[in-house]
Amino acid sequence: MGIKKAEYVFSEKTVTYYFDATFSSLAEIVSKDHTILITDENVFNNQQEKFNGWKTIVIRPGEEFKQQAAVDEILQQLIKYEADRKTFVVGIGGGVVTDITGYAASIYMRGLRFGFVPTTILAMVDASIGGKNGVDAGIYKNLVGLIKQPDFLLFDYSFLETLPREQWINGFAEIIKHACIKDEYLFQLLENETLENFIGDKNKLGELIERNVQIKTNVVLKDEFENGDRKLLNFGHTLGHAIENNYQLLHGHAISIGMVGASIISEKINNFSAEQKARLVRLLEKYHLPSHLDFDHEKIWEILKMDKKRVGNEMNFILLNKIGEAIVMSIPFTELKSLINQI
Amino acid sequence: MGIKKAEYVFSEKTVTYYFDATFSSLAEIVSKDHTILITDENVFNNQQEKFNGWKTIVIRPGEEFKQQAAVDEILQQLIKYEADRKTFVVGIGGGVVTDITGYAASIYMRGLRFGFVPTTILAMVDASIGGKNGVDAGIYKNLVGLIKQPDFLLFDYSFLETLPREQWINGFAEIIKHACIKDEYLFQLLENETLENFIGDKNKLGELIERNVQIKTNVVLKDEFENGDRKLLNFGHTLGHAIENNYQLLHGHAISIGMVGASIISEKINNFSAEQKARLVRLLEKYHLPSHLDFDHEKIWEILKMDKKRVGNEMNFILLNKIGEAIVMSIPFTELKSLINQI
Repeated sequence: MGIKKAEYVFSEKTVTYYFDATFSSLAEIVSKDHTILITDENVFNNQQEKFNGWKTIVIRPGEEFKQQAAVDEILQQLIKYEADRKTFVVGIGGGVVTDITGYAASIYMRGLRFGFVPTTILAMVDASIGGKNGVDAGIYKNLVGLIKQPDFLLFDYSFLETLPREQWINGFAEIIKHACIKDEYLFQLLENETLENFIGDKNKLGELIERNVQIKTNVVLKDEFENGDRKLLNFGHTLGHAIENNYQLLHGHAISIGMVGASIISEKINNFSAEQKARLVRLLEKYHLPSHLDFDHEKIWEILKMDKKRVGNEMNFILLNKIGEAIVMSIPFTELKSLINQI
Repeated sequence: MGIKKAEYVFSEKTVTYYFDATFSSLAEIVSKDHTILITDENVFNNQQEKFNGWKTIVIRPGEEFKQQAAVDEILQQLIKYEADRKTFVVGIGGGVVTDITGYAASIYMRGLRFGFVPTTILAMVDASIGGKNGVDAGIYKNLVGLIKQPDFLLFDYSFLETLPREQWINGFAEIIKHACIKDEYLFQLLENETLENFIGDKNKLGELIERNVQIKTNVVLKDEFENGDRKLLNFGHTLGHAIENNYQLLHGHAISIGMVGASIISEKINNFSAEQKARLVRLLEKYHLPSHLDFDHEKIWEILKMDKKRVGNEMNFILLNKIGEAIVMSIPFTELKSLINQI
């Protein structure tokens, strides 16, 4: 294959990234005979010809189906296909598909090998990277799961040709998050460009995706099991996750509102400047992301306090020092509740 | 604590074994405030006073409830207790409880720490050791799960005082299995003793349990992820698992019948002697275990071929060379089917 290949060594395995590849090269990476693909109805219906000759499991699309019931269904179909420990599983889709696929593969027969073909911006720059997989438990986002790395990621940008506009916007929330916590240059780049520029220019887009893949991968390589730096990737996600399923928002929209919330708290207790906060709001709005939601503070607090970053009666909350630099601060519940009420 | 303590270093953690301990010392190992116990109705009703002051989740007893529904229920209760990543989970019960507890703890918030207090012979000498945990998927035994070691095992032999006789018999199947694959001296010891001798003599029983804990632990230490020697622990389990849920047998009974089946195959294709086969049958019967079942060969074959030791159209099947020594042999499906039909 004449594609760009990179290898990253994680704790238990080496993960191969195939950049700028085509889906058809999948057959050179895994054997059709011993592989089962998992995708959702949207991807399958849009790209049916790609799945010819592959054993395929098709799940229902969207966050509302990212629940144990979907895992149960996949396990039943793996049994029907007589999958054994030599079977390879490949998830082809957005973050919901890759999260569920990695999880189902990891628990079937105590673990099959798996890889991902992310088909959305969000999955390419974030969800498919780093080995976190699992499902929601009702309204609680990603409450169930484990950390296990895929064998490979295959990036075929042509999937983006059929990506709905709202999914482009959705993915840019995580790109802006990366800029906020790790990359001031990327923040400026995004300020100087527009969503339409990236949609219209394949080279520009490819560079943007690879830059973001690199940011996320570097963080995870240094702290795979989230004892330190990886926590920063949760910027915007504590409030974001709490509102996402309750208000049925797209993940990126929820995270966008969560980032603004976290920047308000950063201003109040971490000397983050009002000017930089305003820059962040402007950038989110430039990329068509929401910056505010009138949410039910009591109800959202009840969900938020169950966040995985809770430790007893404190929350490890991600704040900005400045654009491009974030920290973890342990905030007592009483203080955090009052801060959330001011958002 | 004045108890015997041993530490074993597995790939990801050190597991501490507390031998000859009492349940009350649990409060010295984990904090009551940050611990949730999981047990089943049988243990809870028999030993209710032990659970005073502990947050406890009580599940329905028996293999038929070792299914995803029990995991879902535990996850809901962990949420209700507001368990977070500092919460410790302790499973107190037989193999069903320890298998489900280890699994639920491993996937809640991508992994809580956990320990076990095995309360049956079978759990003490086998199920609680080695980090395999999970649930059945319908009739398919342990099809879903993962390998993750507990932080500790606490052995309180006083739980055995209320153990029903059928559960004593159940546990001795795995003890005889250990003798068959690894310990001819243990086989002879069992031939010279009776079940009643062990039930009546605490010292004899303690020594027997610790010898078996040691056998299993040594095998797992050498091959935690079952690439080699650990496979031998599956002696009797391929046929055993296939009949267990279909005929609703106790695990030990199913394994006993499976061991006889595997010894018949060992005689046919591995020069295992008829005399030693007869000794094994006699020993199983001496310990009140069944040596034969008239099973539906077609139906059982359909289940058996989905065993986790399947690789494509071959099965890694465990055979005996002689009492105390086992091997893994890859047997093609067509041959295995015909061999199973002769049992």
